Amino acid sequence: MREFEEIRKDFPMLKEFTYLDSASTSLTPIPVVEAMNDYYYNYNSNTGRGNYRIAIKSTAKLEDAREKIAKFINGNHDEIVFTKNTTEAINMVANGLRFEKGDNVIVSSIEHHSNLVPWLNLNDVKTKIAKINNDYTVNPEDVFDLIDESTKLIAISHISNVFGSMQDVEEISKIAKENSVLFLVDAAQSVGYTPINVKKLNPDFMAFPGHKGLLGPVGTGFLYLKKEIADDLMIKNLGGGTVTNIEGDEFRLEDIPYKFESGTHNISGIIGLSKAIDYINNIKIENIRKYCNKLTNELYEKIHSIKKVEVYGNLNNIHHTVSFNVRGLNPYDVSKILDETSNICIRSGFHCSIPSLQSIGINSTIRASIHCYNNFKDLEKLYDGLKLISQLS
Amino acid sequence: MREFEEIRKDFPMLKEFTYLDSASTSLTPIPVVEAMNDYYYNYNSNTGRGNYRIAIKSTAKLEDAREKIAKFINGNHDEIVFTKNTTEAINMVANGLRFEKGDNVIVSSIEHHSNLVPWLNLNDVKTKIAKINNDYTVNPEDVFDLIDESTKLIAISHISNVFGSMQDVEEISKIAKENSVLFLVDAAQSVGYTPINVKKLNPDFMAFPGHKGLLGPVGTGFLYLKKEIADDLMIKNLGGGTVTNIEGDEFRLEDIPYKFESGTHNISGIIGLSKAIDYINNIKIENIRKYCNKLTNELYEKIHSIKKVEVYGNLNNIHHTVSFNVRGLNPYDVSKILDETSNICIRSGFHCSIPSLQSIGINSTIRASIHCYNNFKDLEKLYDGLKLISQLS
Repeated sequence: MREFEEIRKDFPMLKEFTYLDSASTSLTPIPVVEAMNDYYYNYNSNTGRGNYRIAIKSTAKLEDAREKIAKFINGNHDEIVFTKNTTEAINMVANGLRFEKGDNVIVSSIEHHSNLVPWLNLNDVKTKIAKINNDYTVNPEDVFDLIDESTKLIAISHISNVFGSMQDVEEISKIAKENSVLFLVDAAQSVGYTPINVKKLNPDFMAFPGHKGLLGPVGTGFLYLKKEIADDLMIKNLGGGTVTNIEGDEFRLEDIPYKFESGTHNISGIIGLSKAIDYINNIKIENIRKYCNKLTNELYEKIHSIKKVEVYGNLNNIHHTVSFNVRGLNPYDVSKILDETSNICIRSGFHCSIPSLQSIGINSTIRASIHCYNNFKDLEKLYDGLKLISQLS
Repeated sequence: MREFEEIRKDFPMLKEFTYLDSASTSLTPIPVVEAMNDYYYNYNSNTGRGNYRIAIKSTAKLEDAREKIAKFINGNHDEIVFTKNTTEAINMVANGLRFEKGDNVIVSSIEHHSNLVPWLNLNDVKTKIAKINNDYTVNPEDVFDLIDESTKLIAISHISNVFGSMQDVEEISKIAKENSVLFLVDAAQSVGYTPINVKKLNPDFMAFPGHKGLLGPVGTGFLYLKKEIADDLMIKNLGGGTVTNIEGDEFRLEDIPYKFESGTHNISGIIGLSKAIDYINNIKIENIRKYCNKLTNELYEKIHSIKKVEVYGNLNNIHHTVSFNVRGLNPYDVSKILDETSNICIRSGFHCSIPSLQSIGINSTIRASIHCYNNFKDLEKLYDGLKLISQLS
């Protein structure tokens, strides 16, 4: 394994910036960009269509990516549907499930809008919201208490994109199964940071980004779709690549997973994502998990030690993301000053998760989020900047 | 303007291959790939979210792209919705329109599956199909004849992806307006090859790829969505970036076009597409049109001159795409031999448009399609290869 300090060379922007916004999108390592360039310069062609050699090569690369992703989460290759992002994966399920009038879906109050609005948007389906506890997590028993005979699905974020808290998805999965309720996990903030094993966790659906923890390119994501349930879903996005025959009004759909993938893929993006998974596998996910947890704890402690700073989140359960505020200062101004005086890239706002913030009675936070290319010096830099700023208020 | 021969240097693959599959996906010029690399190496960040400088830069680049695209088709920037491909753009309309039971949609028999299956997939909506004429085009009068009081929309391809024929969309647009029927144009095969002016053509919806005529990256496309109608559409893909507020069950949507764009964009792809439009503007679309028409005519004539070859399409109306068969030979074998003996990248099959082929009583064709990076030598090469192969049958 390469040392984490060594890895930083693969991210040219780190020479100039202290990048602390990986929860939004991670930096992309050079080998991933080069894999995409290789596609554009040497075998630029569409997939699944032509029988000339470069088209066969790009198709094989796409299917290799699918295989690699499946292996990475311990699923089967025909359970992986490529999407443009996590949001599309969740909407695919929301629009695909055959709800009956009066059915309900259970989510929590720490969901990203992308795992909340698709459910609120359904006609005749009620969305029940499990409140979070003082420790910033959802209590599985509270989810259990919300289940009734009309509950069709539980949809929960693995890790909160605001508080960094990991939910007990194993326990919630058990509850879902015991009550014959479907289970969707939003893995936007967990994949690439912590090992995922869909055979063990046993969700029906799991939605993933390619461009966050996995270090892949923007414009990529995927849905894990359990084989037994895939054929029950309605498909609302059809076209080229999804049908095998048409006769008059009648069309015959492709097999899974192809029937869910219409039109030309983000081929270069998927090839980049495939390389990104090699990159992660080379470092080993377990090493990333340990290193990122160490960094996160240090990050939490450092921020917490500054007077006038209020940190949200629980040190015993916090993963690569720490939200906070400087008392008396607008979070927007804080992130702006950190950027302009110290080249620190950090987010402020509601992080596409208004209910998370409402649940603790605030409107916005500053959010620092890390990945394995960050180091302790980065945290030091943030600490120094924040300390200085906190004296302004 | 640079000479077309000079342009070939921007497409490294042309040194090795004779690429004749641009109707599927075009080659991507070096400046477009370099613009994407610039994003990944210098301002890799999400858009519309952060207030640090590189996030502001990537957001500005995305909105520049929107502005540039709008100008390119003479629309307004808030009428441009980014999608992952043309297919998604069409499905967005199919799933967004508020159909009533018994409504119908008129398409033609030369539609790509992506402008047919989304309509066939609608419950309680009938799809009426205008037959094509002997000249491989749809007669606007035939479309008119299919209109009845339940017709909600006419959806027609601008240029056929099988026969290269351009439809009289101006006349069909008039018919649609005169009969208070909505009008969608599938511009998958026309944008980048022929000037498009939405103010003049006056469609309600127009679906575009980024990765074909426009020479942009894969994973990009967009929907032109007339402002007056945008707010009537239902949105079936919601999440991060599409809402401004949430209170309990209630959410407030963003303005157009943002409410149609959920989750992280294919930011690098859109930046690449923006550069591709600069590239096209630099050559000038009118020059591309003239040059590609010359090439296409020569391509048609050359193929047509070979004994045992049957060409489909009408020399008086054929644009960058020529379909044909070699009598006595399987099209699949022909494309395979052309690739393996002459490095010619050419398609065979049903081109995601089974009804097109059914309408002239065949199952598959070989299809040669060009762009402005092709030259007369490429056509010579195909001619030589085909001539040799035709002696096999």
